[in-house]
Amino acid sequence: MQKVGILGGGQLGRMLLQAAANYPVETYVLENDPHCPAAHLCHHFMQGDIRDFDAVYRFGQDLDALTIEIENVNIDALEKLEAEGRRIYPKPAVLRTIKSKILQKEFYTRHAIPTAPYVVTGSRADLEGHTGLLPAVHKIGEGGYDGKGVQIIHRAEDLHLGFDAPGVLEKLVNIKKEIAQMVAVGDDGKTTLYPPVEMVFNPDLNLLDYQLSPAEIPTEVLWKVEAIALSLVRHFGSPGLFAVELLVDANNEVFVNETAPRVHNSGHHSIEAHYSSQFDMLWRIILGYPLGNTKAVLPSVMINLIGAEGFSGPAVYEGLEEVLRIDNAFVHLYGKRETRAGRKMGHVTVMSAEKGDLVHKAHRIRQTLKVKSH
Amino acid sequence: MQKVGILGGGQLGRMLLQAAANYPVETYVLENDPHCPAAHLCHHFMQGDIRDFDAVYRFGQDLDALTIEIENVNIDALEKLEAEGRRIYPKPAVLRTIKSKILQKEFYTRHAIPTAPYVVTGSRADLEGHTGLLPAVHKIGEGGYDGKGVQIIHRAEDLHLGFDAPGVLEKLVNIKKEIAQMVAVGDDGKTTLYPPVEMVFNPDLNLLDYQLSPAEIPTEVLWKVEAIALSLVRHFGSPGLFAVELLVDANNEVFVNETAPRVHNSGHHSIEAHYSSQFDMLWRIILGYPLGNTKAVLPSVMINLIGAEGFSGPAVYEGLEEVLRIDNAFVHLYGKRETRAGRKMGHVTVMSAEKGDLVHKAHRIRQTLKVKSH
Repeated sequence: MQKVGILGGGQLGRMLLQAAANYPVETYVLENDPHCPAAHLCHHFMQGDIRDFDAVYRFGQDLDALTIEIENVNIDALEKLEAEGRRIYPKPAVLRTIKSKILQKEFYTRHAIPTAPYVVTGSRADLEGHTGLLPAVHKIGEGGYDGKGVQIIHRAEDLHLGFDAPGVLEKLVNIKKEIAQMVAVGDDGKTTLYPPVEMVFNPDLNLLDYQLSPAEIPTEVLWKVEAIALSLVRHFGSPGLFAVELLVDANNEVFVNETAPRVHNSGHHSIEAHYSSQFDMLWRIILGYPLGNTKAVLPSVMINLIGAEGFSGPAVYEGLEEVLRIDNAFVHLYGKRETRAGRKMGHVTVMSAEKGDLVHKAHRIRQTLKVKSH
Repeated sequence: MQKVGILGGGQLGRMLLQAAANYPVETYVLENDPHCPAAHLCHHFMQGDIRDFDAVYRFGQDLDALTIEIENVNIDALEKLEAEGRRIYPKPAVLRTIKSKILQKEFYTRHAIPTAPYVVTGSRADLEGHTGLLPAVHKIGEGGYDGKGVQIIHRAEDLHLGFDAPGVLEKLVNIKKEIAQMVAVGDDGKTTLYPPVEMVFNPDLNLLDYQLSPAEIPTEVLWKVEAIALSLVRHFGSPGLFAVELLVDANNEVFVNETAPRVHNSGHHSIEAHYSSQFDMLWRIILGYPLGNTKAVLPSVMINLIGAEGFSGPAVYEGLEEVLRIDNAFVHLYGKRETRAGRKMGHVTVMSAEKGDLVHKAHRIRQTLKVKSH
């Protein structure tokens, strides 16, 4: 049996390990928190910091292959492991490019991948010279995650909100749709694309309301999305699973927002709604099996279950029983002991051939199921 | 989080634990072999003999609930744990009835559940007086498993093949179809039925070729199957998941063959092909959630992957790559290190709206995928 390690033990690791149990593979997890969602589902749990050189290098030394569930890992250690013959999904060079918003943007430009106009900024003071780009988004170069490290700057008077650290200032796209396109790449360079999905936002709260699969986009836009995502991933030159986030503007122009070189929140619906889920697909890639079938069994929506504002402590799932009674809903709770405002605590997928049914149930679940604490 | 223990750590435990990771539950496994398929997927693995009173009692003392993946467990310990307030799925009284083929047959007779005519036999010598029942099946009272402990006796001259131990001699039914009916029962007594499935045998080898879901039976037979299974399970008076095996004869009469009070081989297809799988369903029952939806997403076949004759040792999966390329097949390998002739090493489910596609793929998988060893 191959020995495969995962850096990080959150919900992505948990779902990867659920899928791993369909195949003969010996699994390892490195993570600081021994009570993390993935800790109990691997053959060997090792407590340690995925950002620490020694911890990652020691963890990987006796493994056949490694993968990640978060980009914020020690890349130097992965490069040394790669040089010593370990297979890494994705290659460390890709992680280095993606981990920095600056290098990521420069990568897109260098390879003629459409992305919003931008400038690289070294500090907050640098922003002053670029008021012509406003309204814009200031993104911190390293360490941003889940919406943190991103600041919209509408007017020159808001420039003080920018980060006093290296970053990119990016012209705001007049977004009509946000799309995510998953691409799988085998060791042999073969690729396959999942149907793109669409993020539907609550216009009042500017929060992701639900994710619809497949995305409702004109054929012309679908072609652009697929061509751009495939070109981008091919330029990375690495096997693995990639989630490319794209923006579609009012003129049906398509821009890459950013790329995650790993299993991703936008692929959770694939567990039940696709023949080969994103987690199954990554194991096929790592274990050298043929790529899976990305086709949908049925259309679906996916609703993230986020810790409610104003609550922190042991999690209580309000409305769970009502949602468990919905006959085409699949509930995933990540088993995190503590909830916090905004923390990803689970997700629900609904499958149906009827779009009206999907949207109705998505709203109902959004309104019914809340993660609070006593 | 509730603490739930599983007695036994084979493939049924493995798949139960894959499903457990969708819910907040702390899982425990008791099993002799620390390398068993389920050992690494629980929060707490305890090495011990599930047939031993002390091992089972100690294992269960601090748990909220227990379930089994095999009947051959220490029932005395479970009864003591039940008396002390632990919830057991199924109730130990049901296990006591089912574990003995004699008590199981008497239970069916007592509750007017149709079953083949039989006599209870104390020893091999007892068979002499019942030649009028031939051709018949002699079943050993306790300890039979996976076809072991069952002997067909065609003629009086074959009586010496019978077991010299307590058992039942049962008139051979002229079997037209073998059906399995899964029934779920909640703590509140609510029940729900899965569509029954049909075992399709290879007439030359008398081996299970594949399992077809839903079974192709006339409405009249479907009604009998459902009514008999439901009546039987209600008489058990226990929550849990039950797989009732039934025989249909040439006159469309329906007889109960036997019942498994647990997740079962005949429900494996439900992982992908039904909204709530048998494993998901059992967790819903144990955790006090509403019963799941037994409806099929699509019709399916399930093919067991059995260790090939003449091979034992580290498993090699011949033809795996070809089967992994079948675009509507779901491969489950149980990660058992060693194969042996007849050992259950995995299964494959195929989903399709076309019966021809299901049967064609079932045959192809049966002929392609073999478990051997070097």
